[in-house]
This record gives sequence, C-alpha cells and structure tokens, in this order.
Amino acid sequence: MALRRTITGFSNPLVKFLRSLRDKKHRRREGKFLAEGLRLLTDARASSVLPEMLVMATGREPHPLLDALEAAVAAAGGEIVEMDVDILAKVTGKDNPQAVAGVFAEFDTRIASLDRHAAPIWLVAQALRDPGNLGTMLRTGDAVGAGGLILIDDCADPFSVEAVRASMGAIFTQKLACARWDEFIGWLRASEGQLVAASLRDPTDYRIAAYAAPCFLMVGNESQGLPASYEEACDLRVTIPMRGRADSLNAAVAGAVLAYEALARLEG
Amino acid sequence: MALRRTITGFSNPLVKFLRSLRDKKHRRREGKFLAEGLRLLTDARASSVLPEMLVMATGREPHPLLDALEAAVAAAGGEIVEMDVDILAKVTGKDNPQAVAGVFAEFDTRIASLDRHAAPIWLVAQALRDPGNLGTMLRTGDAVGAGGLILIDDCADPFSVEAVRASMGAIFTQKLACARWDEFIGWLRASEGQLVAASLRDPTDYRIAAYAAPCFLMVGNESQGLPASYEEACDLRVTIPMRGRADSLNAAVAGAVLAYEALARLEG
Repeated sequence: MALRRTITGFSNPLVKFLRSLRDKKHRRREGKFLAEGLRLLTDARASSVLPEMLVMATGREPHPLLDALEAAVAAAGGEIVEMDVDILAKVTGKDNPQAVAGVFAEFDTRIASLDRHAAPIWLVAQALRDPGNLGTMLRTGDAVGAGGLILIDDCADPFSVEAVRASMGAIFTQKLACARWDEFIGWLRASEGQLVAASLRDPTDYRIAAYAAPCFLMVGNESQGLPASYEEACDLRVTIPMRGRADSLNAAVAGAVLAYEALARLEG
Repeated sequence: MALRRTITGFSNPLVKFLRSLRDKKHRRREGKFLAEGLRLLTDARASSVLPEMLVMATGREPHPLLDALEAAVAAAGGEIVEMDVDILAKVTGKDNPQAVAGVFAEFDTRIASLDRHAAPIWLVAQALRDPGNLGTMLRTGDAVGAGGLILIDDCADPFSVEAVRASMGAIFTQKLACARWDEFIGWLRASEGQLVAASLRDPTDYRIAAYAAPCFLMVGNESQGLPASYEEACDLRVTIPMRGRADSLNAAVAGAVLAYEALARLEG
C-alpha cells in the first residue's frame, strides 16, 4: 500500500528536504536525486525506473500519463505527495500547476559494476565541468547505443537537476560510472577494450582510424582538453578536422561526432 | 585619438548602459552587444573585429594580450573605459579584477547580405530556443568551415551573452542571418543551394545521402523539431540513426553530426 501525504505548509520538513536535493552535498548525503517534468518521469518509467517519491500539485488537471505514473509508483510501494501549487513552485522553481517531480535513489556508479561487453561503445569524459554537456553526452550515448558514460576525475554531478534534464531521460538508460584516472585505467587494462582520445597530439584522422569494440571514446575538460599523460596511455589518438579559426569543438559535440563515426565503422 | 574614461560611481549612466546590454530589448534598441573575457575579445581581434568600447578594472594586473587589445582598440578610435573592480563586477556579474568586456556593434543579419558561394556548408536552425545551443552551432560552423548560421523564425538571440560565450569566438568568424521561413525559402530558391533537413519523416540515412554544395543543413526546435511543411520543402531529408530509447539528439549535436558528415562527403 502506497504512502500518501498532502503538504499544506511551506515549513514542512519534506519541502526543505526536496529543495536540498538541488545541492550536491545533500544529494550525496541522502543518496537521492530529483528529476522534474512529466516527460522525464515517463521516460524513467519506460526504462523501468520509478521514483521512490512522486510529488505533484493538489489542484492539477488530470493527465493520462501522470495518472499512469502515479499508479505505477503506488503499485511499487512508492510515496505519493501532493502539495499546494505555490509550495510545489518552491520545490521545482517553476510556477506551473502541472509541474511534477520525482525523487530517485542514486545509481551505483562504481566502475567495477560495468559490464564492458554489454555494448560496443562507451563514452568517457574527463573533468567535464558543465552539467549540460554531461547530460548531452548521456543523451548521445543512448542514441548511439553506447553502454554508458564513465566520468573521470572531478566532473559535474550527473545527478544535478541540469544534467538530468539535459540527458532527456538517458540518465535512466545509460550506465554511469565515476572514477579517478588510475582506477579507470586499471579497470580498463584488466580486460579487453580500446581507449580512444579526442586529441590534437600526433593524431589519426577520426574518419580513417581503426575502431574496435568495446571502444571507449574519451573527451577532456572544456577548456584544458585531456592531460598529455592520459592521451599517451590511449590506444588511439584521433582528431576531428578543424577548418576554421578555433582549435576545438564543444566537448559534447566532439564526443558525438566521434561516437557516430565509431558506430558507423563498427557496424559497417 | 582614443577616448579614455574612468568610472568611479555605480550611478554613472555608462554602468547602467552596460548592464542594459544583458537584455535583448536594449541590445536591439542600441544595436550593440557585450562580449566578455580576454579570450573572447582576443578571438575577436584575431578576426579583425574590435569593440567600440573596451571596459576594464582600474586595479588590474598587466597582461600582454590585454595590452595588445587596448592598443588595438585605441588605435581604431575606440573608447577605453576603466572602472573600480566592484563596479566592473556589477557589469560582468563576475568578481574578478582581470575581467574585461567589450561593446560591439551588432552585425548585419539580413539574409540578402549572405554570399552563399562563399562556403560549401551553411547551418540553418529553426526556432532554436537555447542560447547555448545557438552558440555551439556557431562554434561547430567555424570548425567545419561553414559560411554561417541562418536563424529561421523565433530563435534565441545570437547576441546574448550566453550565445556569444558558447560560440567561443565563432560569433566573430561566422556570418549570421535572421529570417522568417518564407523570406528564407524565397532567398534560397532564387539561386542554387541544397536544403537538407534533419528529419524522421521519409528520410535517407545521413551516411548515404548525396550532399551538394552549397549545402544548407537545417535542424529544428529543441522540443518540436521542424514543421512538416518545412521538411517537405527540403531537397533532402536525412536521418541520424537512433539506437536507444530516445528519438532525437540535442539540436546542436544533430547539426554537428550532419555537418561533419557533409564536410567529409563534399571534400571526399
């Protein structure tokens, strides 16, 4: 039987808890994250991931997808919380009576939990700082049939509201792992896997490089790129042509251009 | 001889003017926009575009690139403005004594001013709402040697601080045009040019499509995609494979994947 609650006061501790999930420190402590919007929550459900808690406005209009979501959360023993629309606006930051939010348990992000043979392509990002770029890489990973995204060193938090939103639901379909470089390279070299860097150092044109599955495509920090020593540890350094004045692409764009080339070549 | 001013009060009208340029309505009225940061302003200079006004902190550390920029602006008859670091922070939103901002005249964005034969590839975005995506498309355009970005219908403002920043200087190298659809299609069909839509309707795989220069690669709105009637008016509808659960890519990513494929094929 699902737990149901109606919140009528701004000072309710649950409101404070929900707002605190916008902050990384609190997410880590609670092991929970927020996803907002009916589309995202429906995407989660389609991937068989349900929120532990579903938060909605008391005065909302009925909506078949929202009803289905509510029924699924209730059936799974999750918690259904309704609150006045002005309180919900404090939680979501949006003045929208149709707003809806879900609280999810953070996923296992240990690299040891990845099955590298589950997919031909994996995306790897090092010190990626922008949560929008991170979410976009998850979305691209889903699109190319990648297994997931491996985050090396200090990256933006994949469970931030911005990253979850930019992933357009791919946070629920792609595996996520977080590791320091030494841990990652140790794991990678313990079995088969080709590590490919997007690089400007002694590189091969990305269109003629010989990709091999499982293929780990790595991009670096938005302003620094990859450390030289990381690139040297790669099996392949590939470059994307730059015909203009600038010397780099947006990190998520570079990852996507590489991933689609690798996909075509591995399938071809 | 350059005009030099030192601003010591928050209430100086110039401070208000500079702050107002964060707002689209004021940018349009003034015909000016802001670009911030030494890297961006140096990129502009490398593209022979200088700000009409250069704004810096009085107490800044000397920096060779900043000195060169200041000299170039002064030599071109531009205005050099220095202000207390706390006032500059109000203008840039950053508490950084090395902050620097430039005021530029907005560029001509009439579609009639484009020379379609100046480049083999042009990017086209319809109703693109996210300034970060818009700037990223400019950056990608620079990278593939595109001529510029054509914005159809109601898009984010390319002269917003966010779009200018995401362009990483490509706002100064790529041509920009803004047009309603009817105006664009009239201009396009008045001469040669292949219009290619990223589409899910009756499409050709983007890897086997026959691209032809000048090739106009069009992506649609982040949530709606392109209107069906626009797609029908295209010479080619191409699709990028989606191997996962989602049915679309980030708009800037889709544009980049298409643009790199078209580049390779047109050059191959």
